[in-house]
Amino acid sequence: MKFHVVTLFPEMFDSVLNTSIIGRAIQSGLVTVEFVNPRDFTRDSHRTVDAPPYGGGPGMVLMAPPLFDAVESVLESYADGTRPMTVMMSPHGPRFNQRAAEELAQQDALILVCGHYEGVDERFVEHCVDREVSVGDFVLTGGEIASMAVIDAVARLIPGVLGDEMSTANESFSSEVGGLLESAVYTRPATYRGWRVPEVLLSGDHSAIEQFRRSSSATRTLKRRPDLMQGWGNDTAGPG
Amino acid sequence: MKFHVVTLFPEMFDSVLNTSIIGRAIQSGLVTVEFVNPRDFTRDSHRTVDAPPYGGGPGMVLMAPPLFDAVESVLESYADGTRPMTVMMSPHGPRFNQRAAEELAQQDALILVCGHYEGVDERFVEHCVDREVSVGDFVLTGGEIASMAVIDAVARLIPGVLGDEMSTANESFSSEVGGLLESAVYTRPATYRGWRVPEVLLSGDHSAIEQFRRSSSATRTLKRRPDLMQGWGNDTAGPG
Repeated sequence: MKFHVVTLFPEMFDSVLNTSIIGRAIQSGLVTVEFVNPRDFTRDSHRTVDAPPYGGGPGMVLMAPPLFDAVESVLESYADGTRPMTVMMSPHGPRFNQRAAEELAQQDALILVCGHYEGVDERFVEHCVDREVSVGDFVLTGGEIASMAVIDAVARLIPGVLGDEMSTANESFSSEVGGLLESAVYTRPATYRGWRVPEVLLSGDHSAIEQFRRSSSATRTLKRRPDLMQGWGNDTAGPG
Repeated sequence: MKFHVVTLFPEMFDSVLNTSIIGRAIQSGLVTVEFVNPRDFTRDSHRTVDAPPYGGGPGMVLMAPPLFDAVESVLESYADGTRPMTVMMSPHGPRFNQRAAEELAQQDALILVCGHYEGVDERFVEHCVDREVSVGDFVLTGGEIASMAVIDAVARLIPGVLGDEMSTANESFSSEVGGLLESAVYTRPATYRGWRVPEVLLSGDHSAIEQFRRSSSATRTLKRRPDLMQGWGNDTAGPG
């Protein structure tokens, strides 16, 4: 899978893309990340990418032309008629969630546009962006960290990226656990500072363990995220 | 403000902390980020930080002892009686949002614990973590990118970090816009590919511009994120 990231700060991604699971996915060729910098599509000597908002107010707004040109340069590289989806990181978009990650993981290529904290000219959003996603109801300096989150969440769903294909199955929000939070987990030592792991987990009784995990999952969800329980009982839970 | 990040992958943060607004905040001394690696608190020759879950199943679980020891090493450095809050990045926590960012920005220091995607021994969560936060209903490989998001969202609220102190005021989710999405923004050129900016923004009529922005903010919120409208009309909106 190929990610084209449209960003003014490609160097922000270096460390994340070199480390851990994503780094290995890139090295193994399962994931490719390329960068397009809107600044390379400016036509003035100052290489201007932003300007004050019309109507006044603080801050600077990313101008439409370099963004259009950056995205179109990627689209033009797909001469075979395929058209990667253009996704913009934006606090205004619908929330990115595990279902969205699963959907995006089906794509062969994605264009991820990193906005800037003070805003992006609405004409770009309206006429060039296919989909906005927000990683949450908070404001980031730019879309770069949000893009890293999307790349991570999507890439790890691609078969082969995680060593053990089973390991995404019982995770929180996955349909295997009914869209609920996963159960509490424990590992050695069995007793630490006087705190003992639940005995059932040491019992070897697989059906009792399974029952403990279902119950733990439901209890945790009810206590911490009751909103996730609403769709419970449906085949595919989650607010979408 | 000081962030202590407990992570097995401190090198993942390098590029983000050297770039853009966060980089400048660190250089100016307004923000400090220090790392504590649980691996430095292991006592075996393999420096083991994770082990298989009790009760079986795929994946590895972060062991409690190195995490306790890492967090306690930070707490011990606060001999003056202050105790930084320990926040764990976790898909199980309440959602991190702008209000949480505003709350955390009031702290002098924070300990951010980056979990691992396969889980963290529940005894650490129960007995050492003050607060869990989730950046969204999706699963990341680890808490590192989530921590970057929290650091960015919090740091930019610290006075002096953004050049222009006004520029956080009209943002999406801020109480100044009633917890709604911010209005559409436009910048030059006034006409691009035949698309003209709304004339009112070029009019110089400040009250008409203000009215346009309020209306745009409400319309966008209603269309894209109707859930944010529920608290509208209260002094401080947002689900908390």
